[in-house]
Amino acid sequence: MKFLRQALPTLMMAAALLASPAAHAQFKNAEHAAKYRQGAFTVMAVHFGNIGAMVNGKKDFDAKQAEVDANAVKALSALPWAGFGPETEYLETKALPEIWLEKEKFLAAATKLQTATGNLAAVAKTGDAAKLKVAFGQTAKSCKACHDAYKE
Amino acid sequence: MKFLRQALPTLMMAAALLASPAAHAQFKNAEHAAKYRQGAFTVMAVHFGNIGAMVNGKKDFDAKQAEVDANAVKALSALPWAGFGPETEYLETKALPEIWLEKEKFLAAATKLQTATGNLAAVAKTGDAAKLKVAFGQTAKSCKACHDAYKE
Repeated sequence: MKFLRQALPTLMMAAALLASPAAHAQFKNAEHAAKYRQGAFTVMAVHFGNIGAMVNGKKDFDAKQAEVDANAVKALSALPWAGFGPETEYLETKALPEIWLEKEKFLAAATKLQTATGNLAAVAKTGDAAKLKVAFGQTAKSCKACHDAYKE
Repeated sequence: MKFLRQALPTLMMAAALLASPAAHAQFKNAEHAAKYRQGAFTVMAVHFGNIGAMVNGKKDFDAKQAEVDANAVKALSALPWAGFGPETEYLETKALPEIWLEKEKFLAAATKLQTATGNLAAVAKTGDAAKLKVAFGQTAKSCKACHDAYKE
């Protein structure tokens, strides 16, 4: 990845001009933007993990709690992307350069996650543990696809 | 605060037995719980700051964006409290020992914030910038009250 990171200044010239979803957000600086997105992922992972523990039998299934967790996952899944603005691309984080090299593909994956978490929240509302396990698996696939492609 | 921190083992004997909202959450350890709550606060602060910039004229008012931000603030304001479990009380963070010494008072303040953010989201939905400014101020007061009492 070292090579790609070094090649970024050239490769990104056009891509950096793309409108960034971070443009709106009140980040103090690039580090703050990264902290924001990492915070969103951390919180999302905790609530997603709660659901996983329930549907995988590591914890008693609690329909009400699963709904709370799924709603949190859904709300949070919309957020971190604003923290991947072009000003953050040279920070040393686990975010791979491909995020900025394939910005549209990356954001499409982010949208896919949000579709999955929307379904997760809808299914959680029904209180059906078996269906929630399926929705959890589908969402987990979305997480993994992005991590495989874009996270060190 | 050094004295209070050292006195905690004695002072907290009873309080530590209180049920913790963290009991449900899948935290790997105390540090993870702290990271979770800090993440939630960071993300909440960004979206709250977005609204502040708009209602205070530092940014053009965008009703749709304000609603997105207010909904994020509302959703996030329910979350960080689970990260203040008794297992986290001895970590060196900006969280003051009073949080665990006055757990009920602390959680009452957390509930007050959630009432304020619920109103913030409701007002944001109306698209009325002047009313949103008032709701923003009320919410900011809730933030500040807690920070003054419980944050170093």
